[in-house]
Amino acid sequence: MSERAVCVIGTGLIGGSLLRAAEKAGREVWGTAASEATAAEARADGFTVGTDLDAALRRVVETDALVVLAVPLPAVPDVLRRIDAIAPTCRLTDAVSVKVAVADEVARYAPRARYVGGHPMAGTTESGWAAGQASLFADAAWVIATDDGLDLEVWADVAELAWACGARVVPAAIDEHDLAVARISHLPHLLAAVLAAVGAGEPDDDLPLALAAGSFADGTRVAGTRPELVLAMCEGNRDALLAAVDDALGRLGAMRGALASTGGLAATVKAGYAGRQRWAATRDPMPERIRLDGPGVLAELREIGRRGDVVVGWRE
Amino acid sequence: MSERAVCVIGTGLIGGSLLRAAEKAGREVWGTAASEATAAEARADGFTVGTDLDAALRRVVETDALVVLAVPLPAVPDVLRRIDAIAPTCRLTDAVSVKVAVADEVARYAPRARYVGGHPMAGTTESGWAAGQASLFADAAWVIATDDGLDLEVWADVAELAWACGARVVPAAIDEHDLAVARISHLPHLLAAVLAAVGAGEPDDDLPLALAAGSFADGTRVAGTRPELVLAMCEGNRDALLAAVDDALGRLGAMRGALASTGGLAATVKAGYAGRQRWAATRDPMPERIRLDGPGVLAELREIGRRGDVVVGWRE
Repeated sequence: MSERAVCVIGTGLIGGSLLRAAEKAGREVWGTAASEATAAEARADGFTVGTDLDAALRRVVETDALVVLAVPLPAVPDVLRRIDAIAPTCRLTDAVSVKVAVADEVARYAPRARYVGGHPMAGTTESGWAAGQASLFADAAWVIATDDGLDLEVWADVAELAWACGARVVPAAIDEHDLAVARISHLPHLLAAVLAAVGAGEPDDDLPLALAAGSFADGTRVAGTRPELVLAMCEGNRDALLAAVDDALGRLGAMRGALASTGGLAATVKAGYAGRQRWAATRDPMPERIRLDGPGVLAELREIGRRGDVVVGWRE
Repeated sequence: MSERAVCVIGTGLIGGSLLRAAEKAGREVWGTAASEATAAEARADGFTVGTDLDAALRRVVETDALVVLAVPLPAVPDVLRRIDAIAPTCRLTDAVSVKVAVADEVARYAPRARYVGGHPMAGTTESGWAAGQASLFADAAWVIATDDGLDLEVWADVAELAWACGARVVPAAIDEHDLAVARISHLPHLLAAVLAAVGAGEPDDDLPLALAAGSFADGTRVAGTRPELVLAMCEGNRDALLAAVDDALGRLGAMRGALASTGGLAATVKAGYAGRQRWAATRDPMPERIRLDGPGVLAELREIGRRGDVVVGWRE
């Protein structure tokens, strides 16, 4: 395993956990925070974190480090401009929850960077440096962009960082990633919001909410997430999310028609039961070991992701 | 508190838990099961349970017991016909999750019964006698039908049974109950089914399910319920459920329009956040004590339910 140094831009829940996990794995790590207050919190915990992005990037050039963008999507372009100015050909990945939008911005603002996108799929409803923990990525899925033409050396850097943090790598094309997270992360947030609003009903009648128990509590849990976090995540994945919303609207409309005409809901309920059973069957993915050589290696890696399996290390 | 004997028809999760809870509270209890196999399981646990409904109902007449119907909605008419034949004026309540449909059937098949509907709002995704437990109703909401003209003596019998089982009574008109459960129980099951089907996506691609974590797991939990239980519950509440589905479709359609045009989701996400906050605020209802006298007592009881409060005992 390489011991490549890691520079983390952004010290929120994900960036802060990454600094802790990579340091615990023995890596040389440093980072930058958006505010001096946060940087001071991180330094108080023993980490090399400042607010001088240019200085952090000069150290990247000196050490050939891997840069991890862990800022919200709207903050990405400004960071990329500094990368293009100071460390234009650096090894670059990110931890943003959408991948096509970030790739577009890298192509526009830092086109010489050796970029391989990433998405460690871990999180809590907490946020900020203090919420971070070295164990956040343990056994989590860490998606790595696996499109044709990307830099295999940086792909390996990102994979080794993911494994060092305890995660399992899921290889995926970036458009397939965005469609997948629209279905299983962004749509759930929007359906939870709709359900919470319908359940709340009229302001002068608390009977529905008073009777709400398990099914409502679970179905609306993520509606309690801070709205700005949900908006940043969902609005950055608009095209893929529209496809998922249209799929849901189509199924809900067909169900409404069946309920009004025959009164039957069997097709809806059985498809949902089958989907949940299939999800349960994916909870124990096959751990694969790989080699990054051969002509069709990226296509083979993408197949691992489509099978629902995970990559846990190199094959000798 | 009265020590009225209790006859439970049906020994699934709810009926089986009710037998255990009422016996633990010191009541004389017996019941009937749909199959000899289930009856034998219940007897092995020390309960008086057979399959001879007529014999159980003759004992009801002898002891002036309270009958609790705890069978699925489709099985209700057959039981009511036997009640009309053997114990036509018995004290009768039920534990079915819809109330207008059961009231209609009582009016049709056992019109002389002294019927006051009930709905103990407790459950797990488990079912059957073995899944039952005496503590199932602890602190649960137990809705009691509170429409004008009903038998106050039987209302008191049902309330005392609910309290004996550790539940808190929520008084509600049956049509308001059905609209409320459509919003906070039946709609959540259908949205969970839709979400599970959308998340499962195409049969040859497990990438979405492999990436599914907290938001999908919670949002689809009740899609894992046995389909026939969900169908019996939802299809029996068709009119109220149509209203809830239309509310959800309207909100989802408006959200789709906003996402496609401005790309903004703030209205949806903020309404959902507010709904979830309002739900959290109803988690600690005011415990009320009541007297069952005075001219407007039933209307006053219904107001307690609309305020989201609960009745925990008699006022001296």
